[in-house]
Amino acid sequence: MRAAVLNRPGEVEVVERPTPEPGPHEVLVRVRAVGVCGSDTHYYDHGRIGRFVVEAPLVLGHESAGVIEAVGERVDPARVGQRVSIEPGVPCRRCTQCLAGRYNLCPDMVFYATPPVDGSLAELAVIDEAFAHPVPDSVSDEAAALLEPLSVGIWACRKGGVGPGSRVLVTGAGPIGIVAAQVARASGAAEVVVADVNPHRLSAATALGASRAVDTAETSLEQAYVGRPGPDVLLECSGHPGATADGIRALAPAGVAVLVGMGGDELPLPLSVVQERELTVTGTFRYANTWLTAIALVATGQVDLDALVTARFPLAQAERALTASRDDPHSLKAVILPQT
Amino acid sequence: MRAAVLNRPGEVEVVERPTPEPGPHEVLVRVRAVGVCGSDTHYYDHGRIGRFVVEAPLVLGHESAGVIEAVGERVDPARVGQRVSIEPGVPCRRCTQCLAGRYNLCPDMVFYATPPVDGSLAELAVIDEAFAHPVPDSVSDEAAALLEPLSVGIWACRKGGVGPGSRVLVTGAGPIGIVAAQVARASGAAEVVVADVNPHRLSAATALGASRAVDTAETSLEQAYVGRPGPDVLLECSGHPGATADGIRALAPAGVAVLVGMGGDELPLPLSVVQERELTVTGTFRYANTWLTAIALVATGQVDLDALVTARFPLAQAERALTASRDDPHSLKAVILPQT
Amino acid sequence: MRAAVLNRPGEVEVVERPTPEPGPHEVLVRVRAVGVCGSDTHYYDHGRIGRFVVEAPLVLGHESAGVIEAVGERVDPARVGQRVSIEPGVPCRRCTQCLAGRYNLCPDMVFYATPPVDGSLAELAVIDEAFAHPVPDSVSDEAAALLEPLSVGIWACRKGGVGPGSRVLVTGAGPIGIVAAQVARASGAAEVVVADVNPHRLSAATALGASRAVDTAETSLEQAYVGRPGPDVLLECSGHPGATADGIRALAPAGVAVLVGMGGDELPLPLSVVQERELTVTGTFRYANTWLTAIALVATGQVDLDALVTARFPLAQAERALTASRDDPHSLKAVILPQT
Amino acid sequence: MRAAVLNRPGEVEVVERPTPEPGPHEVLVRVRAVGVCGSDTHYYDHGRIGRFVVEAPLVLGHESAGVIEAVGERVDPARVGQRVSIEPGVPCRRCTQCLAGRYNLCPDMVFYATPPVDGSLAELAVIDEAFAHPVPDSVSDEAAALLEPLSVGIWACRKGGVGPGSRVLVTGAGPIGIVAAQVARASGAAEVVVADVNPHRLSAATALGASRAVDTAETSLEQAYVGRPGPDVLLECSGHPGATADGIRALAPAGVAVLVGMGGDELPLPLSVVQERELTVTGTFRYANTWLTAIALVATGQVDLDALVTARFPLAQAERALTASRDDPHSLKAVILPQT
Repeated sequence: MRAAVLNRPGEVEVVERPTPEPGPHEVLVRVRAVGVCGSDTHYYDHGRIGRFVVEAPLVLGHESAGVIEAVGERVDPARVGQRVSIEPGVPCRRCTQCLAGRYNLCPDMVFYATPPVDGSLAELAVIDEAFAHPVPDSVSDEAAALLEPLSVGIWACRKGGVGPGSRVLVTGAGPIGIVAAQVARASGAAEVVVADVNPHRLSAATALGASRAVDTAETSLEQAYVGRPGPDVLLECSGHPGATADGIRALAPAGVAVLVGMGGDELPLPLSVVQERELTVTGTFRYANTWLTAIALVATGQVDLDALVTARFPLAQAERALTASRDDPHSLKAVILPQT
Repeated sequence: MRAAVLNRPGEVEVVERPTPEPGPHEVLVRVRAVGVCGSDTHYYDHGRIGRFVVEAPLVLGHESAGVIEAVGERVDPARVGQRVSIEPGVPCRRCTQCLAGRYNLCPDMVFYATPPVDGSLAELAVIDEAFAHPVPDSVSDEAAALLEPLSVGIWACRKGGVGPGSRVLVTGAGPIGIVAAQVARASGAAEVVVADVNPHRLSAATALGASRAVDTAETSLEQAYVGRPGPDVLLECSGHPGATADGIRALAPAGVAVLVGMGGDELPLPLSVVQERELTVTGTFRYANTWLTAIALVATGQVDLDALVTARFPLAQAERALTASRDDPHSLKAVILPQT
Repeated sequence: MRAAVLNRPGEVEVVERPTPEPGPHEVLVRVRAVGVCGSDTHYYDHGRIGRFVVEAPLVLGHESAGVIEAVGERVDPARVGQRVSIEPGVPCRRCTQCLAGRYNLCPDMVFYATPPVDGSLAELAVIDEAFAHPVPDSVSDEAAALLEPLSVGIWACRKGGVGPGSRVLVTGAGPIGIVAAQVARASGAAEVVVADVNPHRLSAATALGASRAVDTAETSLEQAYVGRPGPDVLLECSGHPGATADGIRALAPAGVAVLVGMGGDELPLPLSVVQERELTVTGTFRYANTWLTAIALVATGQVDLDALVTARFPLAQAERALTASRDDPHSLKAVILPQT
Repeated sequence: MRAAVLNRPGEVEVVERPTPEPGPHEVLVRVRAVGVCGSDTHYYDHGRIGRFVVEAPLVLGHESAGVIEAVGERVDPARVGQRVSIEPGVPCRRCTQCLAGRYNLCPDMVFYATPPVDGSLAELAVIDEAFAHPVPDSVSDEAAALLEPLSVGIWACRKGGVGPGSRVLVTGAGPIGIVAAQVARASGAAEVVVADVNPHRLSAATALGASRAVDTAETSLEQAYVGRPGPDVLLECSGHPGATADGIRALAPAGVAVLVGMGGDELPLPLSVVQERELTVTGTFRYANTWLTAIALVATGQVDLDALVTARFPLAQAERALTASRDDPHSLKAVILPQT
């Protein structure tokens, strides 16, 4: 099979790789769509993310969907032919975190496209049967691939306790911010304010359900809330320390800040505000138990993932896809179609 | 002022009453719309609900909205002219339940149209300033009145933990069942199944967002879930013991049953099912802290209350309004307009 | 190895069985202590519990502890010699319930001494490595075995939300009721009232920390709470329908009833009380993620399990042990020592 | 009556003041004991705390208890003679925060000894009837006064979710740290590690139930946890930015940091740690609904407040009491007895 491999920073090559063999509890998936994530681009640019360093050629890609082509010996053979969305991290299932249902915190997680584990930017990929989630026909291949970033948004909303009547502020209108805003809206939020400095992205956010867009190049968050009650929930998706601090300061008493965007090792936390208003600040790391919810939100039309896709590439152009967002301010999400 | 008074079971009369005086922290509201609730009809028919007995002429009505006409000495005079929805129960604010935020459980609650407290089926009514909630122009007078039953639905969904991905079963498609279903949908539920024996009401439920209607005169709940996962949440709004037991038995493991409909003193609880699946069963009593959410759900268009109104009556026809639902299977919610 | 096998109702025999082989992720435990549970006695008496029927000779016992004698190929060999308490149910780890951390609700749970799965009333037993929990020397073998019923009590307290200031009522002063009362006390409860009809058991409860004992043969629960605030939490450990209903009626507003004791298929639930007070009623099924807590509570001396043991038997007298509780009103917990 | 008044920073004078009159819902309390809090000392030293500035002579003191001497017209006269602990902040009861049960976040809170509101360091004081909590004879006057700081500790443990099995780290072994540690122990914590640089205070913490004391002048928190699992809960009671950051870094995955100690406007938050471990960081502001729990913990002997008192002063020596802690490293809590 063909796979797009990162040899070293700035060099992606499409090569032949042996077809992977599914283990007893695994399935082999013919990959139809792979979304490009900022982390893929980061590995492409820098060869590492934190302690994870690309030391050998690595198959990128972890937002993916396809069709089951073969199954391991312990898997129901009736699953062959099933369309599935791939949850790209498989935990150990034995540690305290796994048994408590927080499998995203498993120290032995095996996660696609995180060195030395290969990803799914290839014609075929294997995954544990429980992490190949069946999708109905009403969910397109591309949307099925994008259930992964949607899961990040669902997880953020869960951590923030977003529900009917919530006033939500989303800082950062990239793909994660936009799906987070969509999930907040689908959860019944009273208002979903999205803040960014990129007017194209703010337009996309508004088109997809944000109740108000704030261009923080022109209006500070503080100004944006003059005369209005502050948000109950901040979904921080920009990774920008200034936006984070401003977002936290905007929160109403008893508010919750969910820090999704990665923004360095340290953040100046407005301590007295956190104490006087009894704010809660939490970070997210991937997600757990989100796929069924993600599938339902898309299948019922409450969340629109197809609208996020701004460019499509065949596998041979994987390298171009990896830099698409960087080169075009209108770009939101590039998708690679490995069978083309 | 004119008020519709229940003199004895079966006898409602429109009489002149002195204009009420707002206390220091109260407002006087010119009432524009009053929804008829099953409890009003129950008092009309039977003269009592449980331990509450009509022993003197009682003004009925507790689903109401209007315009502030005058304010007490401690209330901001700028509120005169404000359109408000009335939350009809004022708690003591000093007991353990009140201080804990569970003011609906206050033993000293003063609640409209609950003997000996008069309701709002009159030209004017007084209420504590904090329980006269401002509504925006996008919410009609009738919808503002119906924020009260909507609050019952919001409270049920909160107790049930309804959120994105929830599979919800609503038993009983009366006004409460239908608003509960709407709130569930607005909360991101994956599916909202509504069950009833009245096909008109099931049609209304479907028109307002239910994903599936089950006519239990023809299909049992057990049959309705054959080959499908059971619901995570039961919102029981029928008060029918059989529907309640069937609904509980249908629940998926770790499911929650919220018993809203009043159905007598005792219910045969399927204990072994509750234990083996670790189900949670809870009852609701009115609501607390729901109005801001209710206003937002209607103002944003996520919930449609105007569609519930099937008949309108002037104050002089209050008695006819009280029996409208009973006489007409198509009826959902009758509204009285006291200024007409 | 020798094992105590239930051939048919009323017939337990100690037989030679082949030494079990630990699988790759399993450990082989030399069993030092096994507590006798009511379910063991129920299988002995009736040959079935609900849908689980003894159709072939079955090794009983699921409250057990011992020393690791050998390990499977994927297990750290340094664990040989480790003293462990056995959590007797191993879930599938792949289903929705498992991944959500509710592994006790796994439909594919493999649980000791539940037909056709053998238990640990034998010289040796195998268990998944993650379910053989290391215990410190301060926890005796017998206490280590009784971490299993303690887990039931911990789970009940968790479900009930018992914490500092809680007023707790425990109905039923058998081993489960007594450990539940101990956990409630260790959780900071303001009062722990224990009710039973057996004065010996009530004495034991009082000796182990109950703040008040109510002999319901002489005083009804209603009388017991005259002039006092009702409990916030009911931990129902008797399985007696009357006690359950009385306990629920005693609850304060917003109270929680946790139904632990098995008491038949149906319970008459006082519906209007559940609604007016917004009570929560839930059942428990075994436990999940309790062992670390159980070990800590015993190791720190906050819970005393050794005091529960009223009789000890060698393996050869397993049958006598199974009926010990039935024959002696002073009996609380019989323990079998398989190495003797 | 006599009252101890802060005229300006560094000048406290005992003066005659008119006896306060209880309002309709208030009680007049003859004050028997007042604990000295760090905030009293801070006003004495600096004349302000944040935006609260002493601009007119102010009666200090907010940790107090006494006997009801007279009642307002709406209060049950039978309360005269009742021993009570005073909860020193009375909220508006009408705002969103109050109605939601978070009355500590009420923007219109009237709180003792917070300019311009007088405190209770006087022979007599008035308070709302609902905030004068009856105490049993088993709780001494001094302990009744110290239910206020105990409430801070209870609130911290609630926010941290401390319960059976929790591993708790308390940074700062002043009075708040020590009561927080006691509440954690009474909640069933598996371990309660207390860290400070003052060996006297560490000894007190150990004597009152801490399982381990860490002198951070000699051992860093990082070293203290080498080879041990990190804490689940940090109760930060020092206000020291370094201790706070180290404490947060020590937390286990899914851990919670509760920031109680006041430590300036900004804290460098270890963002990547918060995200990778999905930590929750929250601040506390006073407390809500804690008094019944506090009374029960002391009355049952689970928490010992009398042991905190290291010095007693008559009202005439109020000024000396205010500086007692500063002058003596052995001091924990000074108490003033206004009737002496």
